[in-house]
Amino acid sequence: MGIREVIAKKRDGRELTSEEIGLVVGEYVSGNSSDAEMAALLMAIVLRGMTPRETADLTFAMVESGERLDLSSVPGMTVDKHSTGGVGDKTTLVVAPLVASLGVAVPKMSGRALGHTGGTIDKLETIPGLTTDLSPDRFCRQVADIGVAIAAQTERMVPADKRIYALRDATATVESIPLIASSVMSKKLAVGADAIVLDVKAGRGAFMPDVERARKLAQAMVDIGGRAGKRVVGLVTRMDEPLGRAVGDAAEVAEAIETLAGGGPADFAELCEIVAGHMLAAAGAAGSAEEGRTFAQRGLESGSGVAKLREMVAAQGGQVGVVEEPERLTLGAARIPVVLERQGHVTRIDARRVGLVVRQLRARAGAHKAVCGVLLHRKVGEVADVKPAASVLWPEAAGPAPERAIAEVRAAFEVSEKAVPANCVLAGVVTA
Amino acid sequence: MGIREVIAKKRDGRELTSEEIGLVVGEYVSGNSSDAEMAALLMAIVLRGMTPRETADLTFAMVESGERLDLSSVPGMTVDKHSTGGVGDKTTLVVAPLVASLGVAVPKMSGRALGHTGGTIDKLETIPGLTTDLSPDRFCRQVADIGVAIAAQTERMVPADKRIYALRDATATVESIPLIASSVMSKKLAVGADAIVLDVKAGRGAFMPDVERARKLAQAMVDIGGRAGKRVVGLVTRMDEPLGRAVGDAAEVAEAIETLAGGGPADFAELCEIVAGHMLAAAGAAGSAEEGRTFAQRGLESGSGVAKLREMVAAQGGQVGVVEEPERLTLGAARIPVVLERQGHVTRIDARRVGLVVRQLRARAGAHKAVCGVLLHRKVGEVADVKPAASVLWPEAAGPAPERAIAEVRAAFEVSEKAVPANCVLAGVVTA
Repeated sequence: MGIREVIAKKRDGRELTSEEIGLVVGEYVSGNSSDAEMAALLMAIVLRGMTPRETADLTFAMVESGERLDLSSVPGMTVDKHSTGGVGDKTTLVVAPLVASLGVAVPKMSGRALGHTGGTIDKLETIPGLTTDLSPDRFCRQVADIGVAIAAQTERMVPADKRIYALRDATATVESIPLIASSVMSKKLAVGADAIVLDVKAGRGAFMPDVERARKLAQAMVDIGGRAGKRVVGLVTRMDEPLGRAVGDAAEVAEAIETLAGGGPADFAELCEIVAGHMLAAAGAAGSAEEGRTFAQRGLESGSGVAKLREMVAAQGGQVGVVEEPERLTLGAARIPVVLERQGHVTRIDARRVGLVVRQLRARAGAHKAVCGVLLHRKVGEVADVKPAASVLWPEAAGPAPERAIAEVRAAFEVSEKAVPANCVLAGVVTA
Repeated sequence: MGIREVIAKKRDGRELTSEEIGLVVGEYVSGNSSDAEMAALLMAIVLRGMTPRETADLTFAMVESGERLDLSSVPGMTVDKHSTGGVGDKTTLVVAPLVASLGVAVPKMSGRALGHTGGTIDKLETIPGLTTDLSPDRFCRQVADIGVAIAAQTERMVPADKRIYALRDATATVESIPLIASSVMSKKLAVGADAIVLDVKAGRGAFMPDVERARKLAQAMVDIGGRAGKRVVGLVTRMDEPLGRAVGDAAEVAEAIETLAGGGPADFAELCEIVAGHMLAAAGAAGSAEEGRTFAQRGLESGSGVAKLREMVAAQGGQVGVVEEPERLTLGAARIPVVLERQGHVTRIDARRVGLVVRQLRARAGAHKAVCGVLLHRKVGEVADVKPAASVLWPEAAGPAPERAIAEVRAAFEVSEKAVPANCVLAGVVTA
């Protein structure tokens, strides 16, 4: 059977075999089949779907396209995490060192900013001197030595995902649960941790607009993990307002350090505790996610997490001084106050709009982009008065701040005379 | 709106505007959009369909991609015909000169063999000296002068169709009524005849497996023609056994000449009369298809059609002697008898199988391929006894005939003790 027959089979709504999926991915990566053939197959998958078995086989075929890490030198269980991306989502920077400090190794490969959401790698690189470009050997050794490493995904792992994702982006075939799930999970399986906690975001600031669809994506990824023999938990969390109070690379690192030191914003600290709790439970270091959360809270209170972050920064060549004085990260940034036109209870802060403002600021600030950001002095459920509800962070060296950004941040807020509760972060948990 | 947004719109099942369809075809032909983008759109069209309005706009955009003929120098109405392709289908060779001899000009552009079916151009080129490579000027002048020309499609007309068809073939996006209909009709509209008769074949030897789907394709093409201001009739005809008694380039030309001279096989002569009758009616030269058929019968009896073929062959540089002595066309071919293992009433002759045998013979015979073929001495409804039911035509110069071909032809026959009627050719007529 050739590529065309495989495309025709999926076009007609039939289930592909493991061999057929292996063939199309293999031929595509080796250059024996064309972008056009893959694009036609991708559109057929978007419209016809894939069974859980097919989705897992697609994931496995993508993993086969490149190198895999060898974590055998790491003692004990390892746990990985992934977020589908949100605005102000700096969770990895907290939970990776926190969980490592509690005895479970965390090998974490991360990506860069995509669309209106930031990227962990961009954030981490605001720490002077720190490198995220670790060779597989160095990465594994660091995880074995200190229990944690956060590095940029390398070109040599899952090249099929990189090529297929670029093609999906060009051909309007991004929106497909089997394709999204296989893309995420192929990268997790190539890293090879024993357990994986997925944070699937739903809402205005997320790629998944609603909780129902986010739950389906979580289910698809949990299923792939199960078929690969991994312990996987999928959390569905809300992403309507930005997570925490800081949005922007340097500001988010500062907020993550603050949170590790026990002083972070309530919604963000809560999410970190939940994610870390599930990571500890999935790795067998806690009897349940609830017990894991208790351990995580203690790790924040005791300062073990912030100590582990210091170790990691040092291991990756970064200046550890910023862990003591995180305010140094945003030095040189003007804080332009954003006062709302109306006073009242904040009912909504449009995460997507805030994310896009920060993206635009970064694009205009050039070399100084790391300090661009937005600080939210008021969150949903709080009262906005005549004091600034937010600040725009803008590099003084880059000239006057764009007026439009200030107006955009103001417009992201909705205010009402009636009080509303703070947003609840966790919307659901999907297990095998 | 960009290409990706157009793809996404069709992916989501929404109707594209004329401008959107014009954009994607124009950008593709000019090289500004990729095969991958077009392939994704084509798969979305296969699975989501197109409205009649979209299908017509796609056709018009494809016509716009290249040159169009200028038939203004041709006096009176012009009529074109098209067959979706069958085994033994040499109808054009009869009806084009026949209708021209009855006073309606026929400008006919044809294709080459595709899959298991032959091509009019390959057949016509078996006449020594004849060229089917006519410049647009020469083509139009010949139609104006003698009322008929049959030429090969040129590269410069509807280049979008050529490129899109190659892509569809590679990406399993051939099977789509809007895409098939727009491909056929774009070529007809670029020629520009006033009326068009379409012969949509259904059955074992056709690209459309059943009459219902063939009727839908006919309807789609009639609809496009109506939106282009043309008079279009769609005939749905059966293609279960080969048409007539001859399959193979030279043998089919000989049979067409025989039929024009009033002596062809019953099923093929009947189809020619029906098609010619509709062509005359559509062009206004007959009051009805029935009256047109009567005119056509008279044209076959009077020899006016064969005289017009002689004129056409001469105009295109061919040796007119073969029109007098068509048996010269298959000189050099051995006739290997095929005797069935069982005697009885012939109930079925698998057209597809016979078509594939001839394709294989042509492939093996190399330079002598024109004389390869199969002659059916028995058709469905006739009795097969100990005499040969068929002969395989094989060039003596090419060595011993392939034994396998003989067995394949034998296996194409089904025989029963019970008598069955001859196959009925016409299965339906679709008008605006």
